[in-house]
Amino acid sequence: MNPDLSPLADALAEAEVDGYLLDADSGESDQLYLSGFDAPDPFVTLYTPEETALLVSGLEYGRATEESRADEVARLSDYGFQEKVGEYGRTEGKHRVVAEFLDDYGVESVAAPERFPLGTADGVREQGVSVEVLDEDVVTEIRAVKTDEEVEHVHAAQRANEAAMRAAEELLESATVEDGVLYRDGEQLTSERVKEEIEVTLLRHGCALDETIVACGADAAGPHNRGSGPLRADETIVIDIFPRDKSTKYHGDMTRTFVKGEASEEVRRRYDLTREAFEAALDAVEPGATGKEVHDAVCDVYEREGYDTLRSDPAADTGFIHSTGHGIGLDVHELPRVSPEGGELKPGHVVTIEPGLYDPEVGGIRIEDLVVVTEDGYENLTDYPIRLELA
Amino acid sequence: MNPDLSPLADALAEAEVDGYLLDADSGESDQLYLSGFDAPDPFVTLYTPEETALLVSGLEYGRATEESRADEVARLSDYGFQEKVGEYGRTEGKHRVVAEFLDDYGVESVAAPERFPLGTADGVREQGVSVEVLDEDVVTEIRAVKTDEEVEHVHAAQRANEAAMRAAEELLESATVEDGVLYRDGEQLTSERVKEEIEVTLLRHGCALDETIVACGADAAGPHNRGSGPLRADETIVIDIFPRDKSTKYHGDMTRTFVKGEASEEVRRRYDLTREAFEAALDAVEPGATGKEVHDAVCDVYEREGYDTLRSDPAADTGFIHSTGHGIGLDVHELPRVSPEGGELKPGHVVTIEPGLYDPEVGGIRIEDLVVVTEDGYENLTDYPIRLELA
Repeated sequence: MNPDLSPLADALAEAEVDGYLLDADSGESDQLYLSGFDAPDPFVTLYTPEETALLVSGLEYGRATEESRADEVARLSDYGFQEKVGEYGRTEGKHRVVAEFLDDYGVESVAAPERFPLGTADGVREQGVSVEVLDEDVVTEIRAVKTDEEVEHVHAAQRANEAAMRAAEELLESATVEDGVLYRDGEQLTSERVKEEIEVTLLRHGCALDETIVACGADAAGPHNRGSGPLRADETIVIDIFPRDKSTKYHGDMTRTFVKGEASEEVRRRYDLTREAFEAALDAVEPGATGKEVHDAVCDVYEREGYDTLRSDPAADTGFIHSTGHGIGLDVHELPRVSPEGGELKPGHVVTIEPGLYDPEVGGIRIEDLVVVTEDGYENLTDYPIRLELA
Repeated sequence: MNPDLSPLADALAEAEVDGYLLDADSGESDQLYLSGFDAPDPFVTLYTPEETALLVSGLEYGRATEESRADEVARLSDYGFQEKVGEYGRTEGKHRVVAEFLDDYGVESVAAPERFPLGTADGVREQGVSVEVLDEDVVTEIRAVKTDEEVEHVHAAQRANEAAMRAAEELLESATVEDGVLYRDGEQLTSERVKEEIEVTLLRHGCALDETIVACGADAAGPHNRGSGPLRADETIVIDIFPRDKSTKYHGDMTRTFVKGEASEEVRRRYDLTREAFEAALDAVEPGATGKEVHDAVCDVYEREGYDTLRSDPAADTGFIHSTGHGIGLDVHELPRVSPEGGELKPGHVVTIEPGLYDPEVGGIRIEDLVVVTEDGYENLTDYPIRLELA
């Protein structure tokens, strides 16, 4: 993968600095993206308009040379790390190594992200390097536009997601109902049990996830409530799954809402309306449209039928009380925004579209697919039926 | 849980600052420990010898009030966040809020960890707050001594680990051998398949993990090689599992080495010697002993029989080529060290004991249990048989 990093070069020119510096492990997605190197411990990446160079421990040197996208890889020992630790102590020794590494590339001033480690910044400043915070998410913005390979990674994660949603739906479908509560194999069917089934299915498809939402009834009315306890018939059950492919590190994301048994008239009404809002949002997705316009399309549908949105009432705690969507990739939430602040959509942007309605008295409803913006519209990366009632 | 934070108060007095500041999500274990608050997005924790106070978004306020161990919880809006964003922009607005929050507690100077975000540090410095890096792992050292409750959390994770090891061992035991390769259900039994079984078992016990080691033959000779491909008979298979309990966030850790079929004489010899080194290390664990002494006990056993260690040859790439162990808790690797740098062991320290021998020609061997240092020795938190050959 060879991303177009010219916006970063432009930002450095604008800030009048020689390079961009990262010091993080690959859990920080900008680091993983810029270095192309997946490592559990922090390492240093220097980007200049001429080249990308890494500074790693001896332990990681071989792998960094083979796997990273850097033009050059240096070892701490190349700059006399052990000797410097002996002379100046571990902390200052390390900072002197980083400063010499920068000097090697003719770099006297760097920009760094907001969350760059203070110790390294103050340490290399002591050595005469100028460090300033780059007050824009330039790398994150570059990451928002996916290459074909990245879109394929998201697509693959979404396919695993479909298998997990199917497993969850089958569990609900095969459940029996006693006194309004779902049962399976003689035991109450709980949110926890359905989540376990989802996680096991994802594992078998090479994906992992930290959390899943399986929320029933009033639980489902809090958009971020993960849900717990026995599932009940005739109430909405929101299932929101956002797995990460363990090898590529890209995410999928999908939500469906089910009712085991019979939905009330109001639930049915809200579901159909959410489906309509969902389609309206998709219809609005195309290059040149803004995330705000897509979000407004959803608000228009809901407000027309008298439901609150955060647009009609910023203090609303029922109705449509979140954004329409978000970018997704190495992070489960990333740019671009599909919200009141959402800017222009570009080909290669991968976003969720997930309108929903919430009310503790009625339950929660949300429908979510994942799409990629194309040259002339969008392609839906999700292939999963949208239906409410399970017999 | 109410940890004894007096060493942090002492360090602040020594550094002549008013407080200790964190700005991180709870993925950073010092933040989770000090705040007692598990949140996916960064928030601010201020520790002073008088109190611990959090600064969180409105979204997290209710939960932080209920769940954190802080004496006080403030919201961004308490300091006019939206108004300040309007006036100064998002970045400076946030920094002004943090500075006012500090001022509210009479804090004019703070220490912060090495990896504290540069943006926040420079931002509050602009507002007149003095920020310096505390060049010691004070909180991490406090975390090394576990309360009874924390020991119980580690113990529970280790029990899940035992179930996972059993599932893996049963898979190897039930395999058949054809042309030197293991088969199960008509398919080659691979590292990947065994890892999947381990992960699924852990999930069903409320634990998650990012990685597992199931490494056979020459793979097993690299202590950090995760292993891949078909497993072979009559070769060593190292299984190292380090799960994290999803609810408590504490880790377990255990390694066993198996041979499906018959071990060579050299493998048997190395295994017995590793067992002896393992017992020697355990015998050395008691309060007042140092991690270095425990590590030396292992080196003594290996060197006596003519195997290299990093003590006898710092450049060795076969033999005993890693440390004897490490602390474990919220992080899978934390203080104290059981290595040449290991200091005094104290009651409540939880450490792994994991000697091993490596040689690509012979394979890898490692045996690892998890123990807690007690007032008069140690208690082994692991209950799993140690045996080499599987029929």
